[in-house]
Amino acid sequence: MFDRVFVNAVGADGQPLNLAVRDGRFASISSLGAAHPETGAAEIVDLQGHLVLPGFVDGHIHLDKSFLGDRWRPHRVAATLRERLADEKAALASAAPIAQRADALLRQAASFGTIAMRSHVDVDATTGLTHLHAVMEAREKWRGIIDIELVAFPQAGVVSCPGTADVLDAAAQEGVDVVGGIDPTTLDGDADGQLDIVFGIAQKRGVKIDIHLHEAGEQGIEQLHRIAARTRAAGLEGRVSVSHAYALGDVDADAVARIADALAAAGVSIMTNAPGDRAFPPILRLRAAGVRVFSGNDNIQDAWWPYGNGDMLQRAMLLGYRSGFYTDQELLVALDMATEAGAAVIGKRDYGLKVGNEASFVIVKAPNAAAAVAAAPAERVIVRSGQFWGESGESGESGNTPRTKFETAPAASGQRG
Amino acid sequence: MFDRVFVNAVGADGQPLNLAVRDGRFASISSLGAAHPETGAAEIVDLQGHLVLPGFVDGHIHLDKSFLGDRWRPHRVAATLRERLADEKAALASAAPIAQRADALLRQAASFGTIAMRSHVDVDATTGLTHLHAVMEAREKWRGIIDIELVAFPQAGVVSCPGTADVLDAAAQEGVDVVGGIDPTTLDGDADGQLDIVFGIAQKRGVKIDIHLHEAGEQGIEQLHRIAARTRAAGLEGRVSVSHAYALGDVDADAVARIADALAAAGVSIMTNAPGDRAFPPILRLRAAGVRVFSGNDNIQDAWWPYGNGDMLQRAMLLGYRSGFYTDQELLVALDMATEAGAAVIGKRDYGLKVGNEASFVIVKAPNAAAAVAAAPAERVIVRSGQFWGESGESGESGNTPRTKFETAPAASGQRG
Repeated sequence: MFDRVFVNAVGADGQPLNLAVRDGRFASISSLGAAHPETGAAEIVDLQGHLVLPGFVDGHIHLDKSFLGDRWRPHRVAATLRERLADEKAALASAAPIAQRADALLRQAASFGTIAMRSHVDVDATTGLTHLHAVMEAREKWRGIIDIELVAFPQAGVVSCPGTADVLDAAAQEGVDVVGGIDPTTLDGDADGQLDIVFGIAQKRGVKIDIHLHEAGEQGIEQLHRIAARTRAAGLEGRVSVSHAYALGDVDADAVARIADALAAAGVSIMTNAPGDRAFPPILRLRAAGVRVFSGNDNIQDAWWPYGNGDMLQRAMLLGYRSGFYTDQELLVALDMATEAGAAVIGKRDYGLKVGNEASFVIVKAPNAAAAVAAAPAERVIVRSGQFWGESGESGESGNTPRTKFETAPAASGQRG
Repeated sequence: MFDRVFVNAVGADGQPLNLAVRDGRFASISSLGAAHPETGAAEIVDLQGHLVLPGFVDGHIHLDKSFLGDRWRPHRVAATLRERLADEKAALASAAPIAQRADALLRQAASFGTIAMRSHVDVDATTGLTHLHAVMEAREKWRGIIDIELVAFPQAGVVSCPGTADVLDAAAQEGVDVVGGIDPTTLDGDADGQLDIVFGIAQKRGVKIDIHLHEAGEQGIEQLHRIAARTRAAGLEGRVSVSHAYALGDVDADAVARIADALAAAGVSIMTNAPGDRAFPPILRLRAAGVRVFSGNDNIQDAWWPYGNGDMLQRAMLLGYRSGFYTDQELLVALDMATEAGAAVIGKRDYGLKVGNEASFVIVKAPNAAAAVAAAPAERVIVRSGQFWGESGESGESGNTPRTKFETAPAASGQRG
């Protein structure tokens, strides 16, 4: 006896699918056209031919930075990085509290179907752990809806921003899962100095590493080789990510091939959000070499840029649009980066549409997964652990009630089986 | 006495706005916080602080090509342009009738707020005017909701595809508004030959010109100079557009400056859809030189690529994302390309939020126009000539009923004033 069977869905390949749930987990996933008559279900829900996808994983977001949920703040032009950082500090100081803004962003991400994310959170000697504590407060509120992995992110640099090393270590002691870094050469002017600190904390505290790397061209490639070598030396294979890694989009195919082999051998994964106006990592080449490539929304309506809405399906569309992904197989690569690849990096357990896993999924109006990526229809219905999000009344404290059905379908019929 | 006053809206700048309508036109647009008590209105509608934008203009679409409304067709890789053209012909021959697919796309575009478009339609010696007649049938059905300007588009070439010149001329006699062209040098191998035909028809039949130009680098720039010179020689200033003009993204600033001056002097406008994976025209530089730059969705889920949804607000977001537009002023440029600039190219009369104009607008959940471009929220409510789309029952024959309110707002209160 199942608690509930979702019938008349279609899977990623567009074929019919029934999903049976017991105790919040998938008890059976079959291509049969009807519920298992021999088993029965307390309730049958007709998904009316809509697509089911695994919940989305946002592998790179900044929950403390977004102004979403606050008033609109026009983008200000900054002449230098230091000017941008100062401007951001001032803007955040006059904005609504971090926990409140993070809550608004989490609500929006959840409404698009995100069920797990890795959030970078600014830490430095002046900010200390204040951002971290605020984001932890928001995380607590969303427990059970979105799993959130936290990165202590030294936005202003490590070596060049005295005291930050200690704060990174304190963050690791307070329970962040990942220690961050940023542009060791161009921001700190001391690549080995920053990497000594970051890798040192990772080894001492048992946390993972995720380094923002905007360094371009050959300089960025050298840094990637340095990070790969340190990863192997530290025995941290599979626990190190580099975000952005723009340099991979700047160099020729031979240079990409060499660094891709080094990254694959070290188990260093690459995160790209497919920036709009500069070159970025060649996704298919990296994957062919065995590098895990995942994605995230990165900045969302913050001091850095005005774009972003928290939707990882639209992000998958942008990845494909920017990468020239046209075939179904290529579109599915973009989807993988917004689902399975990110889940593996975060280490989310029991993830995906497989028997035994958490029965969480997203219902989309599309005939198959490739079509869903190409069109990225905004309307979604979310199921967490077998229940429609909003069904049991859990919806956070403010804002809209999450939807349990599409405007024109599908209906939870409540028929007894 | 007004027929209806929409109160509590905000305009592009985020300031409060009331819009009074009489006989389907704006009778008053004011920043007052309440309806004009001295004038009165038969009905007051509270827009609850949502943004109003002018209806969107899609300046480049192919209504005969999209598979939207038909089954999903995975993209097929083609080794050559001729192979792609043959593949497309075969795919279209086995697809649902053109009028039916065009209808589905028009419905979706209308639901996003498009009120005018320029559609290219394939014509050649074998296809004749069959596509054109089918699209004209769909156009008739949508009269009053979407104004559609038609371009006879020689997809397979002009000189190199014998008989096409006669078909282009026949299309002009049958009432298309624009004669098209395509890659005069690389596709036809005879730039002057193709341009003689295209400009000849424009002069003889009094139609406008819109040439697809994918030619790259210096070759494409030369072609633009040729088109600008012919435009002036023919006295067709303001009536010629070049779509894509990728070459403008390939050359240095000096070369752009020279051709931009020539285009501005000839009144030749440029259409870009902001392609995802190649360089494209530098929008701000062209505008600074006085060139009109507009946008369109171009291909939507067809044999050429799987992307696109018909939404011009999302297109504006993509224009900005690809162009590095971050400030409010830049975001408004992207919006202009999806509204005013396209309306000017198409020659849509009585367009825009001004007294005396057709009272058509789009209601969006955003605090101002820049924010609407950056986030491109999918949910819209459409007002045509003072009436909510769907209000009077007009919704075409199939599919969803157009919405007259947001799920959580705004309500047409029906209060008597």
